[in-house]
Amino acid sequence: MNHLLPIHELVSAHQRILPYISQTPLVSNGYINKLFDGQLFFKCENLQKTGSFKIRGALNATLQLSAALGLRGVATHSSGNHAQALAYAANLLRVPAHIVMPRNSSRSKIAGVEQYGGRITFCDPTLEARESVLKKVVIETGATFVPPYDDDRIICGQSTVAMEVFDGTLHPDNIIVPLGGGGLLSGTGLAVQYFAPTVQVLGAEPATMDDGLRSFERGTLQKNRPGSQSIAEGLRTHLSERTLHYIKQNTTHILTASEASIVEAMQLIWQHLKVIVEPSAAVPLACLLEDKRPFRHQQTVVILSGGNVDWAGVPFLSGSAAHQ
Amino acid sequence: MNHLLPIHELVSAHQRILPYISQTPLVSNGYINKLFDGQLFFKCENLQKTGSFKIRGALNATLQLSAALGLRGVATHSSGNHAQALAYAANLLRVPAHIVMPRNSSRSKIAGVEQYGGRITFCDPTLEARESVLKKVVIETGATFVPPYDDDRIICGQSTVAMEVFDGTLHPDNIIVPLGGGGLLSGTGLAVQYFAPTVQVLGAEPATMDDGLRSFERGTLQKNRPGSQSIAEGLRTHLSERTLHYIKQNTTHILTASEASIVEAMQLIWQHLKVIVEPSAAVPLACLLEDKRPFRHQQTVVILSGGNVDWAGVPFLSGSAAHQ
Repeated sequence: MNHLLPIHELVSAHQRILPYISQTPLVSNGYINKLFDGQLFFKCENLQKTGSFKIRGALNATLQLSAALGLRGVATHSSGNHAQALAYAANLLRVPAHIVMPRNSSRSKIAGVEQYGGRITFCDPTLEARESVLKKVVIETGATFVPPYDDDRIICGQSTVAMEVFDGTLHPDNIIVPLGGGGLLSGTGLAVQYFAPTVQVLGAEPATMDDGLRSFERGTLQKNRPGSQSIAEGLRTHLSERTLHYIKQNTTHILTASEASIVEAMQLIWQHLKVIVEPSAAVPLACLLEDKRPFRHQQTVVILSGGNVDWAGVPFLSGSAAHQ
Repeated sequence: MNHLLPIHELVSAHQRILPYISQTPLVSNGYINKLFDGQLFFKCENLQKTGSFKIRGALNATLQLSAALGLRGVATHSSGNHAQALAYAANLLRVPAHIVMPRNSSRSKIAGVEQYGGRITFCDPTLEARESVLKKVVIETGATFVPPYDDDRIICGQSTVAMEVFDGTLHPDNIIVPLGGGGLLSGTGLAVQYFAPTVQVLGAEPATMDDGLRSFERGTLQKNRPGSQSIAEGLRTHLSERTLHYIKQNTTHILTASEASIVEAMQLIWQHLKVIVEPSAAVPLACLLEDKRPFRHQQTVVILSGGNVDWAGVPFLSGSAAHQ
């Protein structure tokens, strides 16, 4: 695999999805800039439709379906933001969305999919069960499988976040994004290559789920250790051959953050930027907090990837910690 | 008192403060629109510099000081957003800000003022003590008193929030803002009169602090009942003769909301708009929740006035309520 998506695919993706997405703001904050002795700019994809950037890829894929395929709808397995995004995109086009979700998904995530009219099929909470139930659904319905990240249409869609950042007068030194399956990092790297080639591209993942860093260093796909956990559950996924390929082309560094730093970063964002982010979206700022020196006197763009919070699981909002 | 501020004062105020403020987004949300069977647009002044719209009035007043007066700085008494705003504005112009604060102000509010270099003088927590200590500070320092709302420069500054709303292609049926001392409602009414005269102007206050409604109905200043409390502590203040005068000119209705509705509205905003608002900023949506019928099939702009939350006092974030 050695192809790269051509620039016109990125431009077309942006034109295609633009009527359906929100123009999310790029915000900065004096307190945080002082803390870093640099300038940080936050692209608020938590304020995007469906509460995350995932709507961009889902729309880019769904809007390219032929009328005949559209009739049969789309399908995916996901317990997270991709499921809500695909349900929303399908609903917009009035085609069915078949979502396979683990039986133990949180109520808020199930409600999110239902809100957009997604048709949920529950399965056992293993990857094998998810894949086999999805296969069955696809065979029964004729729906088109839209994967969460291992797909060029998805990667093109996600590249539009960074394209919008580079669309203005800002010429940052760095851009840093959360790294789970690698769709956003792949897309961001492509956008940088074509539209802002001097910018350093950084991926950010929880230290407990550093498959991205190890894959990047060794050059071959590595998995997360079995049973590894993080508050940033949205980043639990592994890279694919495709996303590793793209990431190798354009990424400068992959950074990791401890769980404590992720909580600290999340709290900084809530309290000073006044926006709600989910733990995964706080991982880039958490990485910067762990070593501020490389970012002194620099301009760094941080993509706040999503705001779909599990309200029962916000650590600084219960008991005495709420007083901080 | 029967004058009205002329249109050029509003335009000049906006030009004067524009280089120093953030362009705050106007956002909407499908879930909330469905709930109301109408279109709601939220102007996010919680994402404004210092976390509230108060920076607009504070800047408009401070930027008009002569060099000689500027040297001696500005002063106010406040435990809330105006104190932070004035400290920020003064810091920007490198002039001193003398802030008289009640001794029992929350740590986060004191920290907010200190963060922007405000010089705090503590006083007893009574209005009399605040006023007499402020008088002493003003005599000692020669600083210019910048009141939180009872001032035409402040009202002009606050009018710029609505001016920005009407600057685009949106032609709403209604605009609703929180009502405390009346600076924002006065300014909003003026902006509507000059730039969008068909829009209905609504004020929103806690039912427990309905001095605004009673003053509006009787035509003379009424006070809140002694000891009345609300989670929306930012709206505890009374109208002044000046703000009542402006409000009489341009306001269509004043609505009130129960404490339960305020909490419900705050939760709706956090969960669906993904932004942090303080209780006062949720009062307009709370009023709409109590009677949705007048807003069906209408376009209504809601000003989210601020996001400076007392983290220990958010009711739906502790214990079992956090799971909702």
